[in-house]
Amino acid sequence: MEKVNLSEKFKLFTDTWCPKIVGVLNDSYVKLAKFKGEFVWHQHEHEDELFYVVKGKLTIRLKERDIHLEEGEFFIVPKGVEHMPVAAEEAHIFLLEPKSVLNTGNTIGEKTVKDLERI
Amino acid sequence: MEKVNLSEKFKLFTDTWCPKIVGVLNDSYVKLAKFKGEFVWHQHEHEDELFYVVKGKLTIRLKERDIHLEEGEFFIVPKGVEHMPVAAEEAHIFLLEPKSVLNTGNTIGEKTVKDLERI
Repeated sequence: MEKVNLSEKFKLFTDTWCPKIVGVLNDSYVKLAKFKGEFVWHQHEHEDELFYVVKGKLTIRLKERDIHLEEGEFFIVPKGVEHMPVAAEEAHIFLLEPKSVLNTGNTIGEKTVKDLERI
Repeated sequence: MEKVNLSEKFKLFTDTWCPKIVGVLNDSYVKLAKFKGEFVWHQHEHEDELFYVVKGKLTIRLKERDIHLEEGEFFIVPKGVEHMPVAAEEAHIFLLEPKSVLNTGNTIGEKTVKDLERI
């Protein structure tokens, strides 16, 4: 039961596309991740997912349009909606999603992270 | 399915201690609220609650100690833990909690808000 300072936590890792757990509440994890480049197209069949931009810029590509997020903005990807996060420069992202979420959803591959680290 | 800019949303209201819904994901609401002064001691029997400071400072009093939060910091109050938020100056807070949460938990009174506005 300690407070979490986002800036301090982001200093603890450098890898990208590998969310770290920084909080647990109800059935969900709060995670922090650094994004850079393109991720993979995927969807989460049963879970909505929140992306909040702490630093930098993030584009969430949807099939129909792109969502452009700046610092201080969030977007919720509803369950079942295909999406691909893209960050031209490194972006610091706060994620909120059920514990059951796999980062690459239905697209298992080299970017899939099965054992999340808690920092 | 639109993005949410926190600064823009905070411009839409001036009242304090009255959370506004700005997002829905899974079984939870994302809410924004302005806090100023002392709230009331209360607890949520079944729900963990996340407080993230977007602007200003927030103290969450617990029975054993105080948690002092600055901008960019969050704290999760576990279910069943008595707490009282206090903000000496107006603070802008991002809340995340299950839809079932009543703002004053088990302490029904003049600060209780039963019909949350969505902005």
